[in-house]
Amino acid sequence: MPTVYGLRSSGNCYKVQLLLELLGQPYRWVDTDSTQGATRTPEYLALNPNGKVPLLVLDDGRRLAESNAILCYLAEGTPYLPADAWDRARTLQWLFFEQYSHEPYIAVARFVRRWLPGDHARQAEVPRLIERGAQALDVMEQHIGSESFFSGGAFGVADMALFAYTHCAADGGFDLSRWPRVTAWLERVRSQPRFSAMAA
Amino acid sequence: MPTVYGLRSSGNCYKVQLLLELLGQPYRWVDTDSTQGATRTPEYLALNPNGKVPLLVLDDGRRLAESNAILCYLAEGTPYLPADAWDRARTLQWLFFEQYSHEPYIAVARFVRRWLPGDHARQAEVPRLIERGAQALDVMEQHIGSESFFSGGAFGVADMALFAYTHCAADGGFDLSRWPRVTAWLERVRSQPRFSAMAA
Repeated sequence: MPTVYGLRSSGNCYKVQLLLELLGQPYRWVDTDSTQGATRTPEYLALNPNGKVPLLVLDDGRRLAESNAILCYLAEGTPYLPADAWDRARTLQWLFFEQYSHEPYIAVARFVRRWLPGDHARQAEVPRLIERGAQALDVMEQHIGSESFFSGGAFGVADMALFAYTHCAADGGFDLSRWPRVTAWLERVRSQPRFSAMAA
Repeated sequence: MPTVYGLRSSGNCYKVQLLLELLGQPYRWVDTDSTQGATRTPEYLALNPNGKVPLLVLDDGRRLAESNAILCYLAEGTPYLPADAWDRARTLQWLFFEQYSHEPYIAVARFVRRWLPGDHARQAEVPRLIERGAQALDVMEQHIGSESFFSGGAFGVADMALFAYTHCAADGGFDLSRWPRVTAWLERVRSQPRFSAMAA
């Protein structure tokens, strides 16, 4: 049974929870609060030198970091990761888009607004985060006008990755009513059998 | 013959050039200068709505964005992308690490120092970029102490991705002599048959 080190309110960690629940795969979850320094201890850094959650640990001790790499590994051979080379490539495209053009703005806006004090210096970053995050949502809105999902035409790991921080984008100050197709796609994700919501 | 839209001095674009040269695969290259607005034209945005290079276009018109997704697609079935599930997962781990924990600091430090005026407001970002980029190099140094490469134990796409901005990190103000194992790994990459250097 694999073990996941993670923080339940982190979208990057939630992605892994969501996939495991959708797969109906048993797993252990070790609460690891990165906001309280739990990923910077010597013990944790020995597990993941990059000091981040989530981290997947297999029964034999092998360890895998990076949420989207974990998604691909766990989804291999399931309908959530396409076997077709081009569909797989398009899935990876959206997974890298999520980590480079989406999460650094939409997740960080949420972090700054929800977890930092209102007078913290980083509040000054919010307008730029909102602007760049809106560009990412625009790109998603355009894609989802012609296709139902982001994982090579079907529901899969790229949808889970993009859902993680899009569904709670309002926490960062985004008004999702500006992106009606994205909003409809969020509902399609929520309607998947065995869908599991993120912890509040 | 595939077409690559790219800027030769961009590490993200160079990754794709490097793989194609290593594979000995013929390709067309369309110079697309993102620093001069060439990725924000209506024509280019019709090809890649996210307005970035590189972009791979196949003969039948199919398009793929995101440098590391392009690497995986082109390397499928070659020795540069492991077939073994775990080695592939570890390769993806480093590809996501590169886009999330490495490129946003090491490539951006290079961009700010080399392409922006010395009195540009973004010069103020450089100390934090150097600090976070050094953390990424520390993580690489630790890994490369126990393995020769980053792509599941062998030379492959994760090495190409990490090489792209690591080898020119001095442009951003990093002193690579601090990371001797990384420096030795750079030489192992350069010694690969058909290795192709990045444009100056």
